[in-house]
Amino acid sequence: MLQQLNKEVLLKRREALEQVIKRRFIYQPAFSLYGGVAGLYDYGPVGCAIKTNIEQYWREHFIIEEDLFEIAATILTPEPVLKASGHVDRFTDLLVCDTKTGTGYRADKIVTETLEQRIAKEGDKLGADVKAKYLAVIKDVDTYKQDKMKEIIAELQIKAPETGNELTDPSPFNLMLPTIVGPSTKLPAFLRPETAQGMFLNFARLLEQNGGRVPFGAAQIGLGFRNEIAPRGGLLRCREFQMAEIEYFVDPTEKATFKKFNKYINLEIPLLSRQLQADALQHQPFKMGDAVKAGIINNETLAYFICRTYLYLVEIGINPVNIRFRQHQADEMAHYSSDCWDAEIEMSSGWVECVGLADRSAYDLNAHSNATGQKLQAARKFKVPQPRQVLSIILDKQKIGKELKKDGMALIKFVEALPDDEKLELSEYFQTHDEKVFNIDGKDLTLNKQLVKFEQKTMNVMEEKFIPHVIEPAFGIGRILQAIIEHSFNQRDDPQKTFFKFSPRVAPVKCSILSVVQNEEFDLVIQELTASLKKLGISCKTDNAGVALGKKYARTDEIGIPFAITVDKETLTAQSVTLREIETTKQVRVPIVEVPRIILELSSGLILWTDVLTKYPLFAAKEEDA
Amino acid sequence: MLQQLNKEVLLKRREALEQVIKRRFIYQPAFSLYGGVAGLYDYGPVGCAIKTNIEQYWREHFIIEEDLFEIAATILTPEPVLKASGHVDRFTDLLVCDTKTGTGYRADKIVTETLEQRIAKEGDKLGADVKAKYLAVIKDVDTYKQDKMKEIIAELQIKAPETGNELTDPSPFNLMLPTIVGPSTKLPAFLRPETAQGMFLNFARLLEQNGGRVPFGAAQIGLGFRNEIAPRGGLLRCREFQMAEIEYFVDPTEKATFKKFNKYINLEIPLLSRQLQADALQHQPFKMGDAVKAGIINNETLAYFICRTYLYLVEIGINPVNIRFRQHQADEMAHYSSDCWDAEIEMSSGWVECVGLADRSAYDLNAHSNATGQKLQAARKFKVPQPRQVLSIILDKQKIGKELKKDGMALIKFVEALPDDEKLELSEYFQTHDEKVFNIDGKDLTLNKQLVKFEQKTMNVMEEKFIPHVIEPAFGIGRILQAIIEHSFNQRDDPQKTFFKFSPRVAPVKCSILSVVQNEEFDLVIQELTASLKKLGISCKTDNAGVALGKKYARTDEIGIPFAITVDKETLTAQSVTLREIETTKQVRVPIVEVPRIILELSSGLILWTDVLTKYPLFAAKEEDA
Repeated sequence: MLQQLNKEVLLKRREALEQVIKRRFIYQPAFSLYGGVAGLYDYGPVGCAIKTNIEQYWREHFIIEEDLFEIAATILTPEPVLKASGHVDRFTDLLVCDTKTGTGYRADKIVTETLEQRIAKEGDKLGADVKAKYLAVIKDVDTYKQDKMKEIIAELQIKAPETGNELTDPSPFNLMLPTIVGPSTKLPAFLRPETAQGMFLNFARLLEQNGGRVPFGAAQIGLGFRNEIAPRGGLLRCREFQMAEIEYFVDPTEKATFKKFNKYINLEIPLLSRQLQADALQHQPFKMGDAVKAGIINNETLAYFICRTYLYLVEIGINPVNIRFRQHQADEMAHYSSDCWDAEIEMSSGWVECVGLADRSAYDLNAHSNATGQKLQAARKFKVPQPRQVLSIILDKQKIGKELKKDGMALIKFVEALPDDEKLELSEYFQTHDEKVFNIDGKDLTLNKQLVKFEQKTMNVMEEKFIPHVIEPAFGIGRILQAIIEHSFNQRDDPQKTFFKFSPRVAPVKCSILSVVQNEEFDLVIQELTASLKKLGISCKTDNAGVALGKKYARTDEIGIPFAITVDKETLTAQSVTLREIETTKQVRVPIVEVPRIILELSSGLILWTDVLTKYPLFAAKEEDA
Repeated sequence: MLQQLNKEVLLKRREALEQVIKRRFIYQPAFSLYGGVAGLYDYGPVGCAIKTNIEQYWREHFIIEEDLFEIAATILTPEPVLKASGHVDRFTDLLVCDTKTGTGYRADKIVTETLEQRIAKEGDKLGADVKAKYLAVIKDVDTYKQDKMKEIIAELQIKAPETGNELTDPSPFNLMLPTIVGPSTKLPAFLRPETAQGMFLNFARLLEQNGGRVPFGAAQIGLGFRNEIAPRGGLLRCREFQMAEIEYFVDPTEKATFKKFNKYINLEIPLLSRQLQADALQHQPFKMGDAVKAGIINNETLAYFICRTYLYLVEIGINPVNIRFRQHQADEMAHYSSDCWDAEIEMSSGWVECVGLADRSAYDLNAHSNATGQKLQAARKFKVPQPRQVLSIILDKQKIGKELKKDGMALIKFVEALPDDEKLELSEYFQTHDEKVFNIDGKDLTLNKQLVKFEQKTMNVMEEKFIPHVIEPAFGIGRILQAIIEHSFNQRDDPQKTFFKFSPRVAPVKCSILSVVQNEEFDLVIQELTASLKKLGISCKTDNAGVALGKKYARTDEIGIPFAITVDKETLTAQSVTLREIETTKQVRVPIVEVPRIILELSSGLILWTDVLTKYPLFAAKEEDA
């Protein structure tokens, strides 16, 4: 029987789970032979297979369903790109160092830990005022800017924890890992901190692939890097981590509605809105249609991706009661963002942000347009001409021709052909300047303000340019994997007998093929069955060792193989095997020839175990007595 | 009709192909908005989907078939690891720089290009001797060491190509990209140059997962990085590239035979052996059983993976006549390697190494054992006890006790428990030293040579330790992808009408769903059919635009969608659609309900188009006249 999950249950099971994670190499610290490096983990066979499966299902659930353009951009990213995106200046944590040993600490973390220790140690002796102050600081410290942090560290006399030495003043430490590309150009570059920038940079190419139309989405699955000051929590805060991101480009005038959202208006999802947080209340289920109508979620496009994210998480095996979507506070969001929600999953360490869903407005496309001078825009096409205020430029062509001679024509042609937004820029420029120099075909030509007039006209246009807005769902694959593992972990009546109740499509290996006793005739059957499963691309694990069947089941249970096929005496006469499901340990008897297709359909979610139970006779087993 | 492929045909088609690669964003230079970075490419939707598909099939063909342990280790790798592996000292190219501008060049490349230009320009005027000398240098220059390179550059007066300036002396340039991990430890690290090291470092964990038994294999799909001096050839020589590697660990006494090799002894594969190269002959087909028997291929394990590699390449759409396996020359292999073969694929730029298959012996496990002091070994277990020469240590326990008092017992216990190889080391050590200090439980205890005797005894043992050998097939995914694209590219009678004849399992999108004319009833059918295809995880592209059907076919042909489903008038009355295959453009009429399963089975290789042709009535189409 599955236990109801909550933080306490998860915490209680964690020790047993940690042992399994290590013993079965689900994931483990990297470079242990060399003493290890904090924040770097290697996925072993079980963890790697689950990772591949949740990525593959992410492709089905998001990329195929929404016809997204999946790309694979590079990790190496030249500095100017990340300067434009804001990462060079703002992708930082506040660092403090031990003034004598030089050891570095994340400022918010060291403040929190010190104050928590003081509260734990001195308790009521602190006095109510001091304790309240400490708790207030702990709550807000991760939002403190450099000056405020300095002030608090001085005021509360925070010291280096190991030595008690003074700390340096907090200073921003950039979390990107730097490198240098090339032997002679020596191009400063970073390892990308997110996969998003690659999609923004390819916006124009992808727009072209979509026939110039928005909305459309780009997607990317790949690694991000963050030079964490204090990595911790296993896969929760790593220096190298797998992400899956979508950048969904929409016309800002159209993002309020999203056609496919209609089918989810009655879907109930636990939301922790800004208001609920302000009122210090818990998350509560909302019908998604209502949440948009009430203005809790900014627009249907964002709400649609919240729904799809929720359904994805449930489908891959996250317990629905341990999921909530928490809205960012106004001061927590980036200034350009109009709304932002985190999918949080309750784990043994509490609620953990696993997916971020942000409305990034036009920020990123704008940033790269400004940095490169290349317009990253789409066009809104009208079926019937629309009246629009258009700025037109009237040039004194005669005077220009006189002044510039034959260059005059070039200047006139160039200025008249300026796109609308640049005409607007020019009109603004002339409010404070008297002349403007254009470089035309390599020649600097000067346009005098006196020779230009601007006129607002209403014209009928067939299209207009705009910068798309972006809705960005960003998934942390490692965090989601850790959540799946925690939620799927179970112990039978004998707590030594542990198993994972993975969703079959996520399970690292789809089935095991076991022999009830060692027997050469059984081995032949196992070989043939294995071959026919592999032909369908189904992973399976055989075990024909001379140990009790119960022990073989325990081994495959421990890594969460959902289905076990057992070859026994009857197999040779009746051409059938038993098929066992991991959670219930119930078994049915199935003709051998039907086994590969059953496993294939179970693991791709086309049928459920209950379908198998209704179709085939139950087999009364005694194999659990190992 | 498909053309026979060779370098000339491929070269002729390349220009048209390049246009399609760009127009349909199969892959393109990264960071073009910012002026681009040589050697970095982004995969667009078509390239990325093909990449995902060939990786997924690699998993089926290798990982599932051989029950390999797939892992995902980190890209960030601390310096000591790569010092031990030899990369810090030897993963270099010779660099020369323009003495005035500082521009760097790869020495071998600049020598080759200069001499080729001289030959092309001056021709016979050079004289036969000089020309012969030039050709000899061009042939061998990539094997020159630093001194020889310096000598040749001076002798042949090679200068910087753009400026004619003098060049600096050649010096080794390390091709790894450096970074620094952490704010306070400031750990020097590199981006991994190959995925292999992560598998060697996890050897002990994986051995444990395999119950302590060899053979077993590890596999990894992921990125490698190489700070190329002169990136070139599109995806052929990139600074960031996707790899798929296998490290197959074997008992060196058993690698000569490999049970599953039996089924391939009659498989014919084109080999360019060391001998054929020495005789200046072309590659020729060998029966693989014969090649091993004749000693051309070192062992069956290596030969087995050559067979599997060949079959993989053919299955994903590489033309079999454009594949050969070239054996490394003795001086081309690493010193520890006992045999090495490259799968080369003929492309428009000539024969390109796409897979390397090397017998790396025990080199890597040894290197990391030596660097860390942790033994990376497996045990050979015997069914019956085997006589083995065992070195036993006889200690003068009395004297040791007298000298060291109570520490004496600890020393005796420790030394007697030393594993066999360390006993051997100790005996060798005492040939040149008089005493040895052991650190036991934190205390330094000295053992005097006089108190020890060694004796060789024959003993019956049940197991012995050994360092496994490694067979390493290493695949360059980007190169293979470029080969698939070149080999699949075709032009119809109208050369503007291009298409890719991808293997359905590799095709970026499995089918298109088109309407013969714009019609709302057709749209409903398209929507339903799309939904049922997506439910099976099948990617499809719909096109209900108001353009001629022939134009729609041309669009989907251009990105190699193998099957096109067309909804027409008869669909509404007969509940059937037409299904068209890309190469032949033949069409059949198929009931709608059967379409999803047909596409699923075609794209997973379970059925072929010829099977569909025999089952369903041919449909006489006129849609090509766009």
